[in-house]
Amino acid sequence: MELLKALEWRYATKKMNGNVVPQEKVDYIIEAARLAPSSSGLQPYQIFVITDKALLAKIQPIAFNQSQITECSHLLVFAAWDGYSLEKIEKVFAKTLAERGLPADRMDEYKQRLWGMYEPLGKEWHATHAAKQAYIAFGLAIAAAAEQQVDATPMEGFIAPELDKLLGLEALGLKSVVILPLGYRDEAQDWLLNLKKVRTAKEDFVTEIK
Amino acid sequence: MELLKALEWRYATKKMNGNVVPQEKVDYIIEAARLAPSSSGLQPYQIFVITDKALLAKIQPIAFNQSQITECSHLLVFAAWDGYSLEKIEKVFAKTLAERGLPADRMDEYKQRLWGMYEPLGKEWHATHAAKQAYIAFGLAIAAAAEQQVDATPMEGFIAPELDKLLGLEALGLKSVVILPLGYRDEAQDWLLNLKKVRTAKEDFVTEIK
Repeated sequence: MELLKALEWRYATKKMNGNVVPQEKVDYIIEAARLAPSSSGLQPYQIFVITDKALLAKIQPIAFNQSQITECSHLLVFAAWDGYSLEKIEKVFAKTLAERGLPADRMDEYKQRLWGMYEPLGKEWHATHAAKQAYIAFGLAIAAAAEQQVDATPMEGFIAPELDKLLGLEALGLKSVVILPLGYRDEAQDWLLNLKKVRTAKEDFVTEIK
Repeated sequence: MELLKALEWRYATKKMNGNVVPQEKVDYIIEAARLAPSSSGLQPYQIFVITDKALLAKIQPIAFNQSQITECSHLLVFAAWDGYSLEKIEKVFAKTLAERGLPADRMDEYKQRLWGMYEPLGKEWHATHAAKQAYIAFGLAIAAAAEQQVDATPMEGFIAPELDKLLGLEALGLKSVVILPLGYRDEAQDWLLNLKKVRTAKEDFVTEIK
């Protein structure tokens, strides 16, 4: 399905019917997120894919009891690095150079410049910056789900520190930043389904400077 | 073009050839961004589309002299609200209710709850939160460009306060957060074109909890 048509079709599904999304579609959506661009190619995030019903039931109250948490087929949790470090940057760059068959020192100058810029900005800035990168991947996952006619509900409405604790993210150097239940709309019961999609009018959204 | 194939095709184009992207493709890419979901549907961002060559020449040094700024066909500047206010939220909700033919007071409780949550978080948090929303739209623009076989280079490498000043964004209550030159790859001269796309391996990217 063409992307614009898919984006018209999608909406923040409020009620899902519990049907299971085929694994190949879930893989497709995750692959879109994996292919997302990120600042300096660091990809400072991971995805947790939760289908464990007992765990989803524990997440639901953390997410203000939103029904999609337990009605969905798969819950994607986007978790971003809690901070950058020279070691993390070195690891990514070393992998990039190795896969490209380039000398291991090729990015040394860039690496030093990047860390020289990042280090003084501090860990809170790092975490925010990493979270922003995760939002690009999140956008691509939303696009991929829509293209595959899989419903998805972008959610920021959860208590991140509690979800981090439940998933043991702190020990992994990660913070949950946004979540995406995947599933199928309950056409009979979703109050939002038949309401008009409202967006900023194009003339208020775009300014051309010619 | 199927999204995953398009995402494999795209890369952060380092050298563009100056060819012009047809207006219908630019419109398509912007429309994808306009249709992006955002927290509470606030869409706290706008896009500036710059083709003015003299202005692009002024932006180039602000963007560390990256060549794509002047080689591109159109430069998209994603600018997010510098903060939330009850008035801004009211305006969006009023428009939503009017377009949906719903009573004007239908979202009053939600609006008060939202502002009760946002207000104490402060303007810096607001601006960061708005910027994150813009990154979702940015992700969708990247996806749309790839689908349309238009090259695009996601860029954070610019001095945002200087770009804000040049575009007069402060007076509009906006801050530039990320930019996207659109154009076409210079196949003969782009050093990145033939290097392997490197991403986190799937096993390091995804954790399944079944």
